[in-house]
Order: sequence, then C-alpha cells, then structure tokens
Amino acid sequence: MNSKIIIAIDAMGGENAPSKNIEGVALFLKKNKNKYDFFFNLFGDEMSIKSELDKHNISNNFYKIFPSSTVVSDEETPLTAIKNSKDSSMWNSINSQIVSNSNITLSAGNTGVLFVVSRMLLKTIESVSKPALAGLWPNEKNMNVVLDLGANVECDDKNLIDFSEMGAALYKALFPEDTPKVALLNIGSEEIKGTETLKKSYSKLKEISKYGDFEFNGFIEGSKITHGESNVIVTDGFTGNIALKTAEGTAKFITDSLKKSLTSTFLAKISVLFSFFALKRFKEKLDPRKFNGAIFLGLKGPVVKSHGSTDSIGFYYSIDLCYRIIKGDLMNKIKSNLSHINNESD
Amino acid sequence: MNSKIIIAIDAMGGENAPSKNIEGVALFLKKNKNKYDFFFNLFGDEMSIKSELDKHNISNNFYKIFPSSTVVSDEETPLTAIKNSKDSSMWNSINSQIVSNSNITLSAGNTGVLFVVSRMLLKTIESVSKPALAGLWPNEKNMNVVLDLGANVECDDKNLIDFSEMGAALYKALFPEDTPKVALLNIGSEEIKGTETLKKSYSKLKEISKYGDFEFNGFIEGSKITHGESNVIVTDGFTGNIALKTAEGTAKFITDSLKKSLTSTFLAKISVLFSFFALKRFKEKLDPRKFNGAIFLGLKGPVVKSHGSTDSIGFYYSIDLCYRIIKGDLMNKIKSNLSHINNESD
Repeated sequence: MNSKIIIAIDAMGGENAPSKNIEGVALFLKKNKNKYDFFFNLFGDEMSIKSELDKHNISNNFYKIFPSSTVVSDEETPLTAIKNSKDSSMWNSINSQIVSNSNITLSAGNTGVLFVVSRMLLKTIESVSKPALAGLWPNEKNMNVVLDLGANVECDDKNLIDFSEMGAALYKALFPEDTPKVALLNIGSEEIKGTETLKKSYSKLKEISKYGDFEFNGFIEGSKITHGESNVIVTDGFTGNIALKTAEGTAKFITDSLKKSLTSTFLAKISVLFSFFALKRFKEKLDPRKFNGAIFLGLKGPVVKSHGSTDSIGFYYSIDLCYRIIKGDLMNKIKSNLSHINNESD
Repeated sequence: MNSKIIIAIDAMGGENAPSKNIEGVALFLKKNKNKYDFFFNLFGDEMSIKSELDKHNISNNFYKIFPSSTVVSDEETPLTAIKNSKDSSMWNSINSQIVSNSNITLSAGNTGVLFVVSRMLLKTIESVSKPALAGLWPNEKNMNVVLDLGANVECDDKNLIDFSEMGAALYKALFPEDTPKVALLNIGSEEIKGTETLKKSYSKLKEISKYGDFEFNGFIEGSKITHGESNVIVTDGFTGNIALKTAEGTAKFITDSLKKSLTSTFLAKISVLFSFFALKRFKEKLDPRKFNGAIFLGLKGPVVKSHGSTDSIGFYYSIDLCYRIIKGDLMNKIKSNLSHINNESD
C-alpha cells in the first residue's frame, strides 16, 4: 500500500459537498480504470460519504473513510481557525499526512483556514521564508505555473527566489518532458524596469539558473503571460492575485459578450448550429475547471485547494492534479531545487 | 478663436506618421461635420503634413501647421530626452500649451519621453504629489477610467487619494451624465484586506467622498473591473500596468482561440457567414481602438498618449478623447476636486 499514491480528501469542503467531491472521485476512477496506484483517504460525515460512494458503485479497494464530526464554515476566519477547526474534516485530512499515510491533501473548503491550519500542522520547510499559493494558467503552448496568487501581500527578493525554485519544481513534477522557464512579472522586459526587489531578484535568478533547475527568461509583461515562452511566472501575492482575477474577469467579460452576440439575431442563432462543435472545442479548451486547483508550496507536505464553487468535473481535475503532483515527486524536486539557493547564499 | 477647442497634434509620432495622424484628423472632421468648435495645431514636417492634408481635402479653416524639424525616436530614453528632443514635433506640441493657444496635446510617440517632457514643460499641479497615467477600460455598462497605468511604480496613500480625485474629474468630464464611482483595486473586498497603504487610503477616501466628487465603493477585485458598479478604478502604477496588460493579453488569447476554432472545420467556416454581423458587432464592441488614448493627469495642461501602433481609426478615437476632455472642462474639475483633499488635510 505504501507504493500507492494516497490522496486525503476533505469530503465536506465546498459547495454541494460531499456529493460533488465523491462524484469527482468516481470520475477519476473512471478515467484511470486500469491503474491501481492510488488510494483515497476520505474525511467527513461517514453516512453521507458512504451513501455517495454507493451511488457511484465505488469499490472499497480504493478508499477508507475517516469519520470527522465537524466542518469548517465559510465564515470562519483564519484568526480563530486553529481553535475552531480542530477535528474538522479539513483539519483531519491535513493531519493525516502526519498521523496516517496520506501523501497529499485536497480541500474545496475555506481557503484562509486551509492555509493557516496547513501551515501549522505541516510546518514550513526550514529554508523557505514564506509558503506560496501556485496555480495553473493556460498559455498558447500548454500551461503556466503562476505564483504567488495571494498568500503573501508583500514579498522580498528572497521570497521571489524561493517561489522561482518551488514553481520550477512544480512545473517539472507536472510536465516532466518539458523545461521550466521562469520569468518575473514586471511592467516592462528591460532589466532597468520595476521595483528594487524585482531588480535584485533578476540578478540573483540569473546566477542561480546556472544550476539547471530552470531557464531564466528575465522579466515578462502581463500581456505575454499566455504566450508560452515562459511557463513559470513569479510575482508577489498581491500582484499575482490581481493579475489572476483580472484575467478571469476579462475572460468572462469576453465570452459573455460573445454569447450575447451569437444569440442576438435569428441568423446568428442559426450559425451556432453550424459552429456547434467548433465553439464546443473553444469552450473546452478554456474551461476554467481544467485549471482548478491551487497548490500551497513551501510546506513539508503538499496541499491543494479546489475552488469551493466548482462542480464534480472541476473537483476531478484537482484530484488529478494531486495524483500528478505525487507521481511527479514534487517534494523531492522542491528539496533539490531549494538546496541550490542555499549553496548560492553560502 | 479662443472659444474653440484647440488640439495640438504631434503629427510625426507613432508608426505610419504623419499619414495615420492626418487621416485621424480627417475622420474626426467627417464625424463632426456640423461642428466648428475645434481647431488643430499640427506639429512636424510641413511638406509631408500638407501633402497628407490635401489628400483628404481638409480645409485650412481647421488647422495651422507649426513646422518642427526633428522627431523623437522610439529609442530615445527619458534620461536624455530633455536634451535631445528639444524643438521636436513632440516637444513643440506640448510647449504650444504655453507659448501658443493649444488646450491639449496629443502624441503617438515615445511614451517615456512624452511623460518626462510634458512634466518638465507643463509642470505638476502644486498640490499633486505625482502625476498619473489614466486609461479607458470597457465595462458591462459603459467604460471605466483606470489609473495609474504605469507612471509611478510605487505609490503612497496621498498619491492614491490624488488619483481618485483626478480620476473622478476625468470620468465626469468624459461622461457628464454619470456619477463617478471610485474603487481601490485590491485582493479582496473586505476592509481588512491588502497593504497598509490601501487600508489608509480606504479610510481617507471614505471621509473625502462626503464632498460629493464621487461615490466611494471601497475595494474592488480584479475579477470585477468589468462589472461596471465602479467606474474609476484606482491603483499604483505597477499593479495598474500589470492588470491592464494582463487583461489585454487575455483578451487577445481568447479572441485568437475563437478565431482558430471558427476556421477549424468546414461547417464552422460556414457558420461564420451566418454570424458575420453578430461577430462584427462583438468585435466592434471590444475594439481596442475605441479605448485608445492614455491621459496624463496631474500636470497643469492635459496630454494624451495614443498607442504608437494604432491606425487612423485608433488615432481618431484619441482625437475625440482630447475634444471631450476639453469640452468637459477637465482642468477646472481637477482643480475643484483637489481642493477638497486640501480642505481635508487642513
């Protein structure tokens, strides 16, 4: 059993839990029919989890239920979370990386609480100054890893270097065939642009890139995030959060406008019949559920946050992300990459 | 003649100058056939400007040419600009607000140089700490004014308050029927989110909004910029630049993907015939040329920067923007709004 990838799932976190969570598990099983290298530790209300599992005829070779009596509410604040969330499905799913055999934790619950409790229980890796929140972002060639998406409002150059090495490790774990290409998000691509922190990080990354963990592409502007020449986009949590949400908002604004246009006239409505499959492919390619799952990097165990409002398909994608993270040996890759920073600062 | 709106145009700035610049003027004249309340001071090479004017049969009731012998190159840096750009078409078009009768200056030339020379010649308004670069951004209801888009990498609360008052003045000048609704770009909408600078600005703006220059909507997330509940989005130049470029990149990424999908199969290609007008309207609505023109706010005279690579239609829109700025009495509105900050800090 130890050779299996064991994913701890907070079955009670997010909208429509545990129904969508377990349906996500069922989808994962369906898509990985001939694989037996994974196992789920499921945390939450035993009765309702069991009833959902039975709906999908999921064999008990694939899971173990760990009954947890409480659920972290969306209203819980990070300040009181440590006191109030003990023994909740979220808490126990994180803690199972320590007290049980879980390799990774997935929750669609309260983000702030998940972050605080994960940090407390799993602890930050010694040499890491601040853990970060990384996400996936589509680009023309494949996908970017982008971090920090909001864990740290203010960051110094040490933080940005850590993020670069950890982001490169995540990219390599997820896309083993590909080379991580790190770029720092900035307001121009010239070396003299931006804040002092960015300029310092620039010269340090140029130096550290000699270890071969990643190629360093220098500064990148917001307009080029989707180009795919760089695939690990590094920034502070404030800027990353603004960029991510602005991109999401813009995408929604445009696709909504398109929808309105394509149903505005009779002729346009007919056209949709002809372009049905093309539009479907278009929609599928940019389906945000495919990018569901933000990864806390810098803790001694990996934790993935699913969007609370996603459906079973989105939840399936975050389970798949967990699977690929462990399969890609993320934690050892992070360790190896971070050792190069330490060498450098010796 | 003093009752006319006099627009100084750097006819040599940007790609395909002076052809696109003068064609933009011609378009403006065509769209404002029965109006005679405007006049153009045109700066640059007399011969080539004259030849372009004649192509479009533009009557000399509408313009005066001010011969300028040099043009600021794209490679010129802000550091050496003051020395090298003297007597260029850009320099003279700005200076004409002082030595001649121009009310506003428009250039599609080198942004950094335009900013530095404008600041030096026109001077910053006494009570303004830092001038800012404002732009237009589509939203579901109409348009936002967003600032700062990159003039100031780092901003304190005094800067953000100035930007709010000046942005509100710009919004009111452009959309006199509407109420400016200011919001601060942040990573969450709760009062406790974000940097100390943002929190300080929040409470000050709440206070200052009592003067009625604008409604204050608190913090806004990147995902809601296009919603239209707020229409003056205030942020520092670093964040604003990243947000703007990320939005532009996302928009391009999505429309490119759509284009690819709609030409991927024979059936899809047919569909485009049926949806031609609907897609055209969609394209028109989001046409970036409509939002062409960034406004330097905080100087004693208004300066508008057109995209260098835009065409004559884009340039027309920035001429129209200049016209509306003066028609809307921007400079007096800024003066009035700023006086409320000074009252407050007494």
